[in-house]
Amino acid sequence: MSTFLEQLETPVPVVDLDRMAMNLDRMAAYATLHGLQLRPHVKTHKSPRIAAEQLRQGAVGLTCATLREAEVMSEVCDDLLVAYPPVGAARLERLARLPQHVRVAVSADDAAALPALSVAAKLGRRSFDVFVEADVGMHRVGVSNPDRAVLLAKAIHDTSHLEFGGVLFYPGHIRQNVPDQSGALAALGTDLARYIDALRDAGLPPRVVSGGSTPAAWRFHEVPGVTEVRPGTYVYNDRTTAMIGACDWDDCALTVLATVVSVAVKGQAVIDAGTKALGREPIRAEGDGFGAVLDHPEVVVSRMSEEHGILDLSKSDWKPRLGDLVRIVPNHVCIVVHLFDEIIGVRGHAVETQWPVAARGRGPAYEEVDKGPSRPRAVKDEAR
Amino acid sequence: MSTFLEQLETPVPVVDLDRMAMNLDRMAAYATLHGLQLRPHVKTHKSPRIAAEQLRQGAVGLTCATLREAEVMSEVCDDLLVAYPPVGAARLERLARLPQHVRVAVSADDAAALPALSVAAKLGRRSFDVFVEADVGMHRVGVSNPDRAVLLAKAIHDTSHLEFGGVLFYPGHIRQNVPDQSGALAALGTDLARYIDALRDAGLPPRVVSGGSTPAAWRFHEVPGVTEVRPGTYVYNDRTTAMIGACDWDDCALTVLATVVSVAVKGQAVIDAGTKALGREPIRAEGDGFGAVLDHPEVVVSRMSEEHGILDLSKSDWKPRLGDLVRIVPNHVCIVVHLFDEIIGVRGHAVETQWPVAARGRGPAYEEVDKGPSRPRAVKDEAR
Repeated sequence: MSTFLEQLETPVPVVDLDRMAMNLDRMAAYATLHGLQLRPHVKTHKSPRIAAEQLRQGAVGLTCATLREAEVMSEVCDDLLVAYPPVGAARLERLARLPQHVRVAVSADDAAALPALSVAAKLGRRSFDVFVEADVGMHRVGVSNPDRAVLLAKAIHDTSHLEFGGVLFYPGHIRQNVPDQSGALAALGTDLARYIDALRDAGLPPRVVSGGSTPAAWRFHEVPGVTEVRPGTYVYNDRTTAMIGACDWDDCALTVLATVVSVAVKGQAVIDAGTKALGREPIRAEGDGFGAVLDHPEVVVSRMSEEHGILDLSKSDWKPRLGDLVRIVPNHVCIVVHLFDEIIGVRGHAVETQWPVAARGRGPAYEEVDKGPSRPRAVKDEAR
Repeated sequence: MSTFLEQLETPVPVVDLDRMAMNLDRMAAYATLHGLQLRPHVKTHKSPRIAAEQLRQGAVGLTCATLREAEVMSEVCDDLLVAYPPVGAARLERLARLPQHVRVAVSADDAAALPALSVAAKLGRRSFDVFVEADVGMHRVGVSNPDRAVLLAKAIHDTSHLEFGGVLFYPGHIRQNVPDQSGALAALGTDLARYIDALRDAGLPPRVVSGGSTPAAWRFHEVPGVTEVRPGTYVYNDRTTAMIGACDWDDCALTVLATVVSVAVKGQAVIDAGTKALGREPIRAEGDGFGAVLDHPEVVVSRMSEEHGILDLSKSDWKPRLGDLVRIVPNHVCIVVHLFDEIIGVRGHAVETQWPVAARGRGPAYEEVDKGPSRPRAVKDEAR
């Protein structure tokens, strides 16, 4: 017996499988066309099932932020980049305990992190590729100039059990996929060339120059020197991605299905998706609200409580009734996925499948029973 | 062998058990002193362990928002208010399937919700108390005036399996626990009196008049007519609660322990707690940032990515180093709890205990094996 969208309990994240397939295809084709390596960031989906599909379509490996993500993804991938500073005893221990057959890279911006990383590598009987993270304008992490990059690359090169992997950057400040951002992309190219030249002059040419973010990914063929792209959001897309022009509205594959639970206050309807289902993420583009109705994009979630979302009906002729179902395109889909344990996959209105957000949370993915450092272990919670 | 705070893996929510005990004591004493019934909202802690302590200290029952919360709390409490509109088939079915010995109340603002609720009650062989939710100025849910309240109360009274329970309101717009808010509290009293009088005149005097929110809870003894208070946040408190004067900084019991992972960019330090650990909740008071350092409240989390929090050091002499641990007081603690599966309890620097956030998530808390409508069932996941 089929289950239909209309029978699901709300709030729940629902993925349009056809749209997701198109999104996966499109990025894989883009990377192939331009000769860029694709290393998708799994933070968006946190699912080994989707990661496996990304690898099947030619991704060279996966990008992770947390050790939970790396552990879960080690079940389907033997080439992981943990694009996060390797700092803190527990993080180092878990890095070292990743299965031995998995090639593991990390990113660093501080030579002070290297000695402990080297010890962890030695104890875990492995080595790490270490990327120099360069700050290209976002001012979050990363060395601030090519001289510092060279010093760090040398320190990596000179530390046992560590290999210099290349340059990594995250141009999170380049969000607009529109023509007037070409200047920012050109500046990025100039900046990267300074890093690449300095490293080459020092005898440490970067094998890989790796850039993150979905909006920028679609433009990296215009930036000389870039060899690898690490987009995450593109698998689902979201309202911000659409509003900045890095995808179409019809490319938004994940919506939060919600129920109208109150129409008592004039000019609005209240749904059962609030901050604990949508996150309180502002739109990083023209517009306001915390999400919009898929079929009525003029209706936004204008206010939220933890379990209430207020739909502002002032700009719409649509009159939702008590009990109606709505699908909300969230502003930032990565946050929504992190708020749920399970995702529903639909084909049209028919529920076709569901999968756990296996890499959600922080705890170790491997069974505690097996304390060995490197044998293959079963991932916990996948079947939950 | 003891474990200390300094050995924990970050990011992780840590509760100071002494502070939490003080917070629980203080609200219980306040309610007793003023003859108010205390029905704490469990959305903040989502833990049956803490709920049991609230009940031991005299709470008359518990308030829930989600059915997951109600199911988990039915293990420790036989008097539950689901302060949420009873709309949607799954919500009704789960309400009806709560254990038979548990008294269940819901809040409503629309007579259109009553027929289905009545059917669910009949099929579940139970009855529901139904509160009329009144909008007293927040404009989220609730009937807008006493005439509508009377119509709804009559409809409840006239519907089989439903009992009129009283009036429920949530003055979320009254956030300041400071003297100049006395005017708003006086207006609230006047407003409530109109509702109470109208219902009494209609022959349906409310047994209970129940108000929510932690900041307002401390002032409800000044509002005539209120019989019950439903604070949630007070168990942990947070930066917003402290900044509006509804608690002291030293009453903030929950912090997010985080590690400094980068000091590469001048004037800032980066910690491993971003939006996926702290939520992107603005401070609803004077100030900025998304949280502040417990021991250096002048240092706020000024920007965030999903796994990065940027500490703005411009107003501080404190110079954190790579690998340092910091404790962040979040702006809104209810969101933080919802982001984690487990909470660590500490006494000073010693880790004393830990407990699951058992009512986090959306799925049914009872074992699927038992499909009976009302027998006591074991709660899943508590031991995870």
